[in-house]
Amino acid sequence: MTSRSPRTALLTDHYELTMLEAALRSGAASRRCVFEVFARRLPEGRRYGVVAGTGRLLPAIEQFRFGDAELEALRAVVDEPTLAFLADYRFDGDIVGYAEGECYFPGSPVLVVEADFAHGVVLETLVLSILNHDSAIASAASRMTSAAGDRPCIEMGSRRTHEEAAVAAARAAYIAGFATTSNLEAGRRFGVPTAGTAAHAFTLLHDDEREAFTAQIAALGKGTTLLVDTYDVPTAVALAVELAGPELGGVRLDSGDLLVQAREVRDQLDRLGARDTQIIVTSDLDEHAIAALAAGPVDRYGVGTSLVTGSGAPTAGMVYKLVSREDASGTMVGVAKRSKDKASVAGRKYALRRRSARGTAEAEVVGIGQPPLDDGDDRELLSPLMVAGRTVSTSTLEDARERHAASLAELPVAALRLQRGEPAIPTTYLDPL
Amino acid sequence: MTSRSPRTALLTDHYELTMLEAALRSGAASRRCVFEVFARRLPEGRRYGVVAGTGRLLPAIEQFRFGDAELEALRAVVDEPTLAFLADYRFDGDIVGYAEGECYFPGSPVLVVEADFAHGVVLETLVLSILNHDSAIASAASRMTSAAGDRPCIEMGSRRTHEEAAVAAARAAYIAGFATTSNLEAGRRFGVPTAGTAAHAFTLLHDDEREAFTAQIAALGKGTTLLVDTYDVPTAVALAVELAGPELGGVRLDSGDLLVQAREVRDQLDRLGARDTQIIVTSDLDEHAIAALAAGPVDRYGVGTSLVTGSGAPTAGMVYKLVSREDASGTMVGVAKRSKDKASVAGRKYALRRRSARGTAEAEVVGIGQPPLDDGDDRELLSPLMVAGRTVSTSTLEDARERHAASLAELPVAALRLQRGEPAIPTTYLDPL
Repeated sequence: MTSRSPRTALLTDHYELTMLEAALRSGAASRRCVFEVFARRLPEGRRYGVVAGTGRLLPAIEQFRFGDAELEALRAVVDEPTLAFLADYRFDGDIVGYAEGECYFPGSPVLVVEADFAHGVVLETLVLSILNHDSAIASAASRMTSAAGDRPCIEMGSRRTHEEAAVAAARAAYIAGFATTSNLEAGRRFGVPTAGTAAHAFTLLHDDEREAFTAQIAALGKGTTLLVDTYDVPTAVALAVELAGPELGGVRLDSGDLLVQAREVRDQLDRLGARDTQIIVTSDLDEHAIAALAAGPVDRYGVGTSLVTGSGAPTAGMVYKLVSREDASGTMVGVAKRSKDKASVAGRKYALRRRSARGTAEAEVVGIGQPPLDDGDDRELLSPLMVAGRTVSTSTLEDARERHAASLAELPVAALRLQRGEPAIPTTYLDPL
Repeated sequence: MTSRSPRTALLTDHYELTMLEAALRSGAASRRCVFEVFARRLPEGRRYGVVAGTGRLLPAIEQFRFGDAELEALRAVVDEPTLAFLADYRFDGDIVGYAEGECYFPGSPVLVVEADFAHGVVLETLVLSILNHDSAIASAASRMTSAAGDRPCIEMGSRRTHEEAAVAAARAAYIAGFATTSNLEAGRRFGVPTAGTAAHAFTLLHDDEREAFTAQIAALGKGTTLLVDTYDVPTAVALAVELAGPELGGVRLDSGDLLVQAREVRDQLDRLGARDTQIIVTSDLDEHAIAALAAGPVDRYGVGTSLVTGSGAPTAGMVYKLVSREDASGTMVGVAKRSKDKASVAGRKYALRRRSARGTAEAEVVGIGQPPLDDGDDRELLSPLMVAGRTVSTSTLEDARERHAASLAELPVAALRLQRGEPAIPTTYLDPL
């Protein structure tokens, strides 16, 4: 919740710790293991996904410690030797992964955790919670900012999701190109720029719209954005320009047919000489509504519900799978379950973005062992995030935002299509898979 | 995150505080106001909603305070007088609401906040975040437990949602009848019973299934639940009974055609004499899949993704609207916006569940002023939660769970239909609305 960095160790499924207990007893807990995080598929019809959450995950892993309060809560769950192990727990393994902001595809090994079983298995829930949530939001957000083109998108969905998920959603949206958020804690904690307009309650609080607008302009200046659909839009727009003059920053439309209204309001503003006054539209926007408004005189889009709920795909569906582990002789061997419709691929993967000579992405190449010799066009996707339990990644939120823009620009143009279809590039498994 | 009760004041939209600034300057900030929380509609096709989150919200409002760190972060957002007001902020108003666990319908005034504008407006984001998230999860969970009948449901969706949303989701699911959760923090923080089985990784870690099952039984006892679909189900079931005998607690199926497999496994277990060994199914279950498995020999359902994402409705869509406020003469007047397709109803509401003489709910009666004389069958829905900023509700999580069961039992049987349809009872607005 705050910068006091609370412990994260109980944000974990019960079975991670009972498996740990059993493995400590069998002795297998000390076997070296490789766990990989990947999505079997993208949400239906999506062209690409966006890795997000890494910047939240690494500190959360560092705070994955069991203090007295946590251990006391676990007395009914695991035995004494396990409690003793947890009391000393500190993640000491290595993590490589896709850099935050990078696009991903089905099978992309977006995070690879190498540690003994005991140190690796207990991270599963936390790793997936953070990556699944933040990647789902960033993936939806990227489609919205693509649809909006040069027009800024404002994240304003806090009220439609869990209060802490809201902070993470604002951060993920920023990575995917949103300009600002309404969420103040996202501003404080992550430095995401915050912004806001006004609600209908502010107009209704005052005896009439004139009083409300006058009060808002007095406090926030003529550059403020006035909400003009509480009573009658043309009346409110005329009043807004009367009170603020042509320096009026913006007007917000939050109901009705936004395209029709935006045109009428633009005409009215222009006629009144307020040519620089912006039109901000809000009201159940998603990427499709944004695209439909491209032809209208809209300056900024405020997006709420659809953003924080992943626009139909509220989770990225990533899984955390054991793909390789030591055998009794100390040799690493690939492992995979053979469950119907959920089989996995054994062995530690590398991943490359294969690119044409002109720099356009052509395939996600995943394989076992050493990546093929680089011809200069391929891009390696895995980079070190933690070494021996210490964070080595120096990627900032701004880095992630820039990386996402670059990664998306590299994809074939079909990636930007909003209609349902296949992933923008195929995932190719190279031998000796 | 922890019991240290972190401050919640910045889990708030930017515009709440700039509206506050403008209202402090105009003088309207001290006007007495009534804000109501309601949903304009249920998610498409749903028969009822479930109020959840109240037990998280009341402490969060008590922790809505601006300390030095929060005020420092707001220097760029609001002016000095507003910062001074926030430094002393402590919610001092009254709140009534539907008790946690109660069913709600379109227009139900599930929470009513009365305070001056300044003290009431700033709570909007936090109130909605908590109620929208938790109610969405409880509403989905209630359909799942209804579909499951007497068979227990296990909440195991933590990995598919934000790490803190997961804790709240486990709590909401418990209110709506889930038996247990996998989330350890929900156990510690809220006392929700926790449980778990084992993952494929545990089997894959060992050299073969025999070693893995032996290790699990040694650590967790014969009453444990073994995951039997890592390689071949009949082989694993035979091995499980060989190792644990008829006291084996359960086997878990996590892939394939669950109905067919459950029948085959039940036959096999019975033939092996393990008649009391339970079958637990997991794998993308939702309320429809649970209903489809009613005919199969399934003992418990584990539900993940669909639960934490609200089974298609990840937010309850509740809004927080100013419905009444003081005018210049100190008289309370009803207010409502007239925005197209989003008009609201002015005036402070009461709410009754109208019931037949046999106790079956017939209508959600919402009106202004005094509720009609009770004929003994109607049930008043609003009860005091906070008085002058102090929590007066003594409702516990167990109370909410019992209340939900009672509230659901009172609805017409059509409420339990999973297919899309109208709300189970109509919302009736009484004059003088």
